[in-house]
Amino acid sequence: MPLDPERLLSQPPVEAVTALTKRDAILYALGVGASELQFVYEENLKALPTMAAVLGYPGFMWREPKYGLDWKRILHGEMALELHAPLPVEGEVRGVTTIGPIFDKGADKGAVIYSTRRIYDAFGALVATVGGATFARGDGGFGGSAAGQPEPHPIPQRAPDVIHEIATAENQALIYRLSGDYNPLHIDPAVAKAGGFPRPILHGLCSYGVAGRSILAVLCGNEPTRLRRLNLRFSNPVFPGETIRTEIWREAEGRAAFRSSVVERGVVVLNNGLAEYA
Amino acid sequence: MPLDPERLLSQPPVEAVTALTKRDAILYALGVGASELQFVYEENLKALPTMAAVLGYPGFMWREPKYGLDWKRILHGEMALELHAPLPVEGEVRGVTTIGPIFDKGADKGAVIYSTRRIYDAFGALVATVGGATFARGDGGFGGSAAGQPEPHPIPQRAPDVIHEIATAENQALIYRLSGDYNPLHIDPAVAKAGGFPRPILHGLCSYGVAGRSILAVLCGNEPTRLRRLNLRFSNPVFPGETIRTEIWREAEGRAAFRSSVVERGVVVLNNGLAEYA
Repeated sequence: MPLDPERLLSQPPVEAVTALTKRDAILYALGVGASELQFVYEENLKALPTMAAVLGYPGFMWREPKYGLDWKRILHGEMALELHAPLPVEGEVRGVTTIGPIFDKGADKGAVIYSTRRIYDAFGALVATVGGATFARGDGGFGGSAAGQPEPHPIPQRAPDVIHEIATAENQALIYRLSGDYNPLHIDPAVAKAGGFPRPILHGLCSYGVAGRSILAVLCGNEPTRLRRLNLRFSNPVFPGETIRTEIWREAEGRAAFRSSVVERGVVVLNNGLAEYA
Repeated sequence: MPLDPERLLSQPPVEAVTALTKRDAILYALGVGASELQFVYEENLKALPTMAAVLGYPGFMWREPKYGLDWKRILHGEMALELHAPLPVEGEVRGVTTIGPIFDKGADKGAVIYSTRRIYDAFGALVATVGGATFARGDGGFGGSAAGQPEPHPIPQRAPDVIHEIATAENQALIYRLSGDYNPLHIDPAVAKAGGFPRPILHGLCSYGVAGRSILAVLCGNEPTRLRRLNLRFSNPVFPGETIRTEIWREAEGRAAFRSSVVERGVVVLNNGLAEYA
């Protein structure tokens, strides 16, 4: 059954509520390896901006039959985050996810489904907008168009201005998954092998959070309110215990490109990064 | 105001309920540094026996005025755990804490207050009994007696039969505290300095859990149901990042003595250990 874009686009918004506690905010920070007091101590606690990735998250909704997707062949392709206000560290947080646009890369390549999750704090204020691109490898060739898909942010050809490295821990995925993504791919060796990996891989959004810590440290003086936008493409998995090296190019006042690779294997894992900051 | 033993002993039992989830059980295991699948993966999850230390815990109750104690001078002196059944990994768990007996070591040394917490699972079954000795350094000389205080388990004079080492992580206390003991001594450098420590120390009960992992691995083939009893005295603090070396002496069928020290400083941190197992 080919992907039915009308059916997908006409689905009502998906709402999900997160009952956030300071303990959750601290656990998220530990999940991406942070240990700075402002992110892990309930006194004067601040949320890491990338925590938006787990707030108001409806779960892996593409698995539901109503979307009619070949969900087992789905990959997380892109992540886009826009921050409108500091994230809360406690209180009810609401996410409202809408679908679209959808692009057709052909039957051999797949479909790219964009979605947007608006995140509201307990007072109803919009604090963050999370955009994602889902790469549905089994659902291309539905008669749509590939025209108009957003271009990835280009990485400059010159040497980076700054390089920042963060080592992940062997138990990084074990901690990160407690923030809500219990996909066994990240803990169960048998599931990882079935998925074609020699051992469990780190969550893409955990690597995203680690790169976010480098961006925050290098470009924002570790002050979370200064980060405005953090976009990237996922290009390869990271294994827990590996060191993530983030290369950063300052492009303009308050804007930088970045790219992350694994030091041990020399493989680019996060690409086409764009950071905007105050 | 001297300690009033009658007042303490006539207090009603303190009940505390823990709404335990698998996430909590996994977080406890990560808090004591475990990464074995059976302790950190919700499929076929088993609880570490030492998790009893945080179940049905009424909090640091000695701080309440009704006990009339000089609570700032209190130290955790001993820990005793008896396991009657496997600990649950989810469901409501109830702890019932009673006080007594109390011993008077004199005005210069302090009082030793024993307490017992019986832990019941969601079906009302008694699963564990946690005993503790609180060393109230400012409350001795109340006219009581030191006679009859339980003797610490003796450590044999010979070389240990087995030595087992576990390294703690730099962020060990940051993870462990999410299991409920938010004493800032374990995270806040200023509070640690005020307490006479160069930096935050690991929770005594975290060190206890690490030693418990060594006992479980060496004596019980890492099968939690085989552990029956785990008692010890706290003798010195551990700093996060240090390696805990546990020396074990097999004494009889199903019984062993143990003692733990920090490799980096050669200091005994847990002493007079007694383990019983099937």
